[in-house]
Amino acid sequence: MLSLQQAIERIGHLDERAMQAARQRQDCLTKPVGSLGRLEELSIKVAGIRGVALPAIDRKAIVVMAADHGVAAEGVSLYPQAVTPQMVRNFLDGGAAINVLARHVGARVVVVDMGVATELEARDGLVSCKVAHGTRSLTRGPAMSRDEAMSAIEAGLEILDLEVDKGLDIIGTGDMGIGNTTSSSAITAAITGAAVAKVTGRGTGLGRRQLAAKVQAIEAALKVNQPDAASGMDVLTKMGGFEIAGLVGLMIGAAEHRIPVVIDGFVSGAAALVATTMAPHLRDFLIAGHVSTEPGHRVALKHLGLKPVLDLDMRLGEGTGAALAISVIEAAVKALAGMATFAQAGVCEAEKRAE
Amino acid sequence: MLSLQQAIERIGHLDERAMQAARQRQDCLTKPVGSLGRLEELSIKVAGIRGVALPAIDRKAIVVMAADHGVAAEGVSLYPQAVTPQMVRNFLDGGAAINVLARHVGARVVVVDMGVATELEARDGLVSCKVAHGTRSLTRGPAMSRDEAMSAIEAGLEILDLEVDKGLDIIGTGDMGIGNTTSSSAITAAITGAAVAKVTGRGTGLGRRQLAAKVQAIEAALKVNQPDAASGMDVLTKMGGFEIAGLVGLMIGAAEHRIPVVIDGFVSGAAALVATTMAPHLRDFLIAGHVSTEPGHRVALKHLGLKPVLDLDMRLGEGTGAALAISVIEAAVKALAGMATFAQAGVCEAEKRAE
Repeated sequence: MLSLQQAIERIGHLDERAMQAARQRQDCLTKPVGSLGRLEELSIKVAGIRGVALPAIDRKAIVVMAADHGVAAEGVSLYPQAVTPQMVRNFLDGGAAINVLARHVGARVVVVDMGVATELEARDGLVSCKVAHGTRSLTRGPAMSRDEAMSAIEAGLEILDLEVDKGLDIIGTGDMGIGNTTSSSAITAAITGAAVAKVTGRGTGLGRRQLAAKVQAIEAALKVNQPDAASGMDVLTKMGGFEIAGLVGLMIGAAEHRIPVVIDGFVSGAAALVATTMAPHLRDFLIAGHVSTEPGHRVALKHLGLKPVLDLDMRLGEGTGAALAISVIEAAVKALAGMATFAQAGVCEAEKRAE
Repeated sequence: MLSLQQAIERIGHLDERAMQAARQRQDCLTKPVGSLGRLEELSIKVAGIRGVALPAIDRKAIVVMAADHGVAAEGVSLYPQAVTPQMVRNFLDGGAAINVLARHVGARVVVVDMGVATELEARDGLVSCKVAHGTRSLTRGPAMSRDEAMSAIEAGLEILDLEVDKGLDIIGTGDMGIGNTTSSSAITAAITGAAVAKVTGRGTGLGRRQLAAKVQAIEAALKVNQPDAASGMDVLTKMGGFEIAGLVGLMIGAAEHRIPVVIDGFVSGAAALVATTMAPHLRDFLIAGHVSTEPGHRVALKHLGLKPVLDLDMRLGEGTGAALAISVIEAAVKALAGMATFAQAGVCEAEKRAE
């Protein structure tokens, strides 16, 4: 496996020749030029990422990373911390939303324990990369140590390698962790410079007073930790959590392997902010699957310069938005490869007229 | 087969009991309440349309209706009229965008000649309901006679019956017809009362001067014909075309059979305006698949009170937006039926706290 620094250095650029070939083919397909809109753009972007004019998306994975957050003890979620391991078991049993949606789009689900607070029994399908039993609370100091952050990122790189070995054309990111929108808001505020209140939402369904307390907790965390916005590693270490760090490694690894990364919602978006702060080129390899109703996600996507594929008022995480978007992206590359050209179909092209 | 009037009278209401059961189940599934956003809404709506608490979407069809428009001779499109039959052949050969996208989502494509100007050779998969060899130009008088409009609507009702006999859980509408955005703009202006310039777009890719000429043609058509906004039949007869009339029949038939109708883009939206003017209850059975970049489509959806599932800058028609949306709707009902409840999965529910 490459080190983090090596992986970052090896992230390439979009393949302009492949993109040009894809663009030229789009303009020969039996439809008015541009009329498939974002499907055309997505197919061209995937061509550029994969470095081939006619990319195929057959082998799809959603990686759901789970971890606990010390800040959960401070009332930032409606759910007790016990829900994190319960939901991990639900993922392994196939009963969660991500299982249903991943089956629908033909993607495999990879469940990773990055740092759940309790011990999880070993089970088929559970990848254990537990860095620690949850982070410390970011409101009192760094959520994790530099070594813990690096271990979690390296675990993400390693998991990506394992998935590539199984065969991988596209990857979606997913998360589970009671309290993780608190870390995500803190990261988003730290990196984008937006006010905490603008990037903090109701998470699993907080009331008005609970939301105010969450905003205060995040403001305290930023004041205590003074994260350096220019250093992804510093922000990540101080704000947490282990699943976000794992996703950072996964994204960097995917970009290095030229695999399109479909980022899911707010937590994945926070991971993308950290990852692109460490590796600005990475941005070219990201596709925003959807925009969450968590207000910070829109701010994160704007900072990343990414336009979401879907906008379905979802705010579940787990990779659910990424899964649905992967199906749209697959449709896009299928249209590029599978449609007849004007010449093949014997269809007249548009007349050129004077403007 | 029922007559048009009988079919309209037999359109029922959403089944409130089925919707309530679906809503209650959504609130027991292992996710924060409401966190699947529009997926939850869509699953509840489909339950109400189908009249069952746990609807399944297995049998999917996209009906693509093709016809020609007399107004095409007046330079309202970049493409010659010959493209209509050429594209019908492309549909039958499986090379068009709708073929690729329908395969992707597991829907069958039904291709109907509602009034293509040339004779099409009989072929497997081509349903011939040719009312006439294209409409007359709406700029000089009614595009069709009342009898022609009724024949086309009845053909749509009949095709829906045939599809129900094959097995049908959801239907998407599609269109092909050089010049049909002109009829659609005229219908949208007539029924919504919006200014022609606000609901007229570049269609297949008109330039600025061509667009101005298209607006003038539509304004002339409205002036010559004086359509009665309160009468869907009057607007349809005067503005055309045969594929739009066929889609009106298809929508009415589907609503009568409690089959969800996923409307595609601008042309399907114009058909929905006509159909809901004839049968206001019909609206409950419609789902807006996407919003097209044709400006009139947004106006039509607002008038219909429908929020699109997708917004992908598409403007192709053929049912392409409906096909992609059907996959999202299928995902929604699969999540409703297939996710574990909190009790089943042994996951703690949200704590109730004081606001």
